Amino acid sequence: MNDMYKTLREEAYEANMQIKNRNLSIYTWGNSSAFDPENGVFAIKPSGVPYDELKASDMVIVNLEGKIIDSKLKPSSDMETHRILYREFVYLAFGQEVVMRGITHTHSPYAVSFAQAAIPVPVFGTTHADHGSGEIPCTAFIGEDAVNSNYEFETGRLIIETFIKQGKKLLNMPMVLVAGHGPFTWGKNANESIYHAAVLEEICKMAHLSLSLAPDLKPLPEYLIRRHWERKNGPGASYGQK
Amino acid sequence: MNDMYKTLREEAYEANMQIKNRNLSIYTWGNSSAFDPENGVFAIKPSGVPYDELKASDMVIVNLEGKIIDSKLKPSSDMETHRILYREFVYLAFGQEVVMRGITHTHSPYAVSFAQAAIPVPVFGTTHADHGSGEIPCTAFIGEDAVNSNYEFETGRLIIETFIKQGKKLLNMPMVLVAGHGPFTWGKNANESIYHAAVLEEICKMAHLSLSLAPDLKPLPEYLIRRHWERKNGPGASYGQK
Amino acid sequence: MNDMYKTLREEAYEANMQIKNRNLSIYTWGNSSAFDPENGVFAIKPSGVPYDELKASDMVIVNLEGKIIDSKLKPSSDMETHRILYREFVYLAFGQEVVMRGITHTHSPYAVSFAQAAIPVPVFGTTHADHGSGEIPCTAFIGEDAVNSNYEFETGRLIIETFIKQGKKLLNMPMVLVAGHGPFTWGKNANESIYHAAVLEEICKMAHLSLSLAPDLKPLPEYLIRRHWERKNGPGASYGQK
Amino acid sequence: MNDMYKTLREEAYEANMQIKNRNLSIYTWGNSSAFDPENGVFAIKPSGVPYDELKASDMVIVNLEGKIIDSKLKPSSDMETHRILYREFVYLAFGQEVVMRGITHTHSPYAVSFAQAAIPVPVFGTTHADHGSGEIPCTAFIGEDAVNSNYEFETGRLIIETFIKQGKKLLNMPMVLVAGHGPFTWGKNANESIYHAAVLEEICKMAHLSLSLAPDLKPLPEYLIRRHWERKNGPGASYGQK
Repeated sequence: MNDMYKTLREEAYEANMQIKNRNLSIYTWGNSSAFDPENGVFAIKPSGVPYDELKASDMVIVNLEGKIIDSKLKPSSDMETHRILYREFVYLAFGQEVVMRGITHTHSPYAVSFAQAAIPVPVFGTTHADHGSGEIPCTAFIGEDAVNSNYEFETGRLIIETFIKQGKKLLNMPMVLVAGHGPFTWGKNANESIYHAAVLEEICKMAHLSLSLAPDLKPLPEYLIRRHWERKNGPGASYGQK
Repeated sequence: MNDMYKTLREEAYEANMQIKNRNLSIYTWGNSSAFDPENGVFAIKPSGVPYDELKASDMVIVNLEGKIIDSKLKPSSDMETHRILYREFVYLAFGQEVVMRGITHTHSPYAVSFAQAAIPVPVFGTTHADHGSGEIPCTAFIGEDAVNSNYEFETGRLIIETFIKQGKKLLNMPMVLVAGHGPFTWGKNANESIYHAAVLEEICKMAHLSLSLAPDLKPLPEYLIRRHWERKNGPGASYGQK
Repeated sequence: MNDMYKTLREEAYEANMQIKNRNLSIYTWGNSSAFDPENGVFAIKPSGVPYDELKASDMVIVNLEGKIIDSKLKPSSDMETHRILYREFVYLAFGQEVVMRGITHTHSPYAVSFAQAAIPVPVFGTTHADHGSGEIPCTAFIGEDAVNSNYEFETGRLIIETFIKQGKKLLNMPMVLVAGHGPFTWGKNANESIYHAAVLEEICKMAHLSLSLAPDLKPLPEYLIRRHWERKNGPGASYGQK
Repeated sequence: MNDMYKTLREEAYEANMQIKNRNLSIYTWGNSSAFDPENGVFAIKPSGVPYDELKASDMVIVNLEGKIIDSKLKPSSDMETHRILYREFVYLAFGQEVVMRGITHTHSPYAVSFAQAAIPVPVFGTTHADHGSGEIPCTAFIGEDAVNSNYEFETGRLIIETFIKQGKKLLNMPMVLVAGHGPFTWGKNANESIYHAAVLEEICKMAHLSLSLAPDLKPLPEYLIRRHWERKNGPGASYGQK
């Protein structure tokens, strides 16, 4: 095993283990990856290996053309969705530093419940506004042709198209629901993509409980959404120790 | 105690302990069994013994005629349901290798909620489609005559008849809800039957939460169900390390 | 401290600790007691002591006249409800052995949700029928006069009157919901009263989830209720190792 | 680091750690503080530090004018809300002993669900009445001007104004929901403010489950609310070992 990718593998491994430890999926479900833009490769969970048996050295290294580098194991069946998203992050960087370097996919139940109902998640509270400046988008159902060609690659394309159509930016909204399937999240590294996966599940739980109390609930006033988003994310962000 | 059944007992014991450890039932509820087609016997949990006190050697060995072999303990009150299902699995094998060798029954609450409401679980998402190519069937309520004769045996018959009536195959759909009662699941061994019991609970939770958001929710498009089912289960399955 | 009540205190203590360990109430809420009919006394949790600080020797010994015996601590504020129920169990024994010797009161959320809505729990499934042959009764709201005299004593009376009015027997149905308040359960000893408290919470969760799927859900057919009840509780009970 | 505030810091630290240990918020969310009226300062969680890395010495000491004393870290972004509330508690004491010396803010999901729906929590049961003599108030949505000036300070003012408008007293009702945001609770010390945060979440869960069973549910009779409130809180309170 090539030592060259040791750090990248460990970053992906730590993120994958949190899928289990934060109760975001059971058994082998879900997958996290970590991206190294200098070498143009990412480390991703192997397909179908239970979390209890997973080792950092099991992480599969894949390049942006989808070629498996240095691994005896097959990558996650969702590898192609990660790949198309990393390619987009490189494209969005226009030769500058790539901002998003981690992706996570889970089957966490409240997020899945919105994805299965194909309903975007409105901004009902400040917990949501702290992490996203608008509703969390949900894609359309993927088409039959896309499913029958390179399905997982097309899932990534569908995510990107959904953002373009809705005028959202992948760099500002690190969460999406794929209709009928479940959530994908990303972040500055694999660990932040897990943070967004856990936050999304919490936001979806709160939205679900609120809609049960008030089925016609309206979103937060826009000025309140903006205030919270900018407090944590804007240029003058005041949250944290930075 | 005859050593001959040691491995079978241990397999059944490990599965039964997961009923508790995966929070699929409380106290003594639920039961798993493991089948040995060569000797025509299965090992099943004894009746009413708490999981904390259970030992591998407590597993009761029963043959396909329902005769208890080599045990001082009474088998689970659901033993006859397991027995009729194993007989059916042998019948379905037509002299070939018996595919299904483990059965689990739990009282996990989301699965029970669909069983109590006597509602089959439509395929609302890919989590479901990964594990079953159609809705999870629910039996009719068992009739009064069946209840008053050999009730547990008749429960097994009801499951088989439900599959026949609905044109489903026991070997393709390893989960069923018994109306007013709860879930039974099976698999290639006792451990896989537990896997299906935990997966069923998760699918039912997701379906329950989705129906709460969208009471008139339609199932996934058929082409998407097929794609996921075949990705994990078809002849060209690409999931896992096989 | 008098050693005479050591065993009784330990039985009550073990039951009280399960209120916390089985997540049936938080902080100091809830209380269990154990009854010794020979000496006409019961051991009950002291008022307002957190479970983490509780010791077996803290259990307060009270006699059937409500006199505190051998304790420096005040008993649970619900002591009088326990007392009137134990008096009734002695009365029901008519000089024979007293069957019910343990009582538990919790604030477990699903049971409380039915109590707050003042709705009895219909028999929607076999999990329920295994533990009760009919719906779990809910009292009327306690009257203003009763509240303003000996409130906790009157709560016990209200439970007994509810059973009489509904033609139910305390010895056959070990669970009740007090409207606007929460559940009381009993059993052959303190440990069985805890078992019934945990079972009640599970039954209420299943009923709640089923009603959410099917708001007009009808109870199980009577013949199926009877079959399950008698399998576990009738004279020819076949469940367990007895 | 000045030893002078060691005890105050430890009190705040212990409370903050319970936000995580009692599952009242994930990651860095939520904050607790402890107030020392003699020195006119409070200790509060630093902004954005994960609970796993938090140390007692990290607690930030702030005085009632909002000046940070003796700390290298920035205080929680909600510090100003705590400050305006402590100022009010001092004002309410009129030179007597300050009763309320601890404040907690969490994002616990059931409490947030009512806050997001901007619905006060009616007294549906005795669990609620034991801790508050009336409905748990919910503020109006904060106005745009308030958001754009000193937002967190104005949040505190909004809480106080809500109590005044509704004729409620901060010293009798230690819980509030801020519309679109979440709960704030207080108590005689930081630990009691956490107790109220956990109790509020439990009350909101019970109310949510009850409303799901009975959407038009009416509050408890007033005489029953009064009896429970006074049993635990009135001048003749009989609960506990006092």
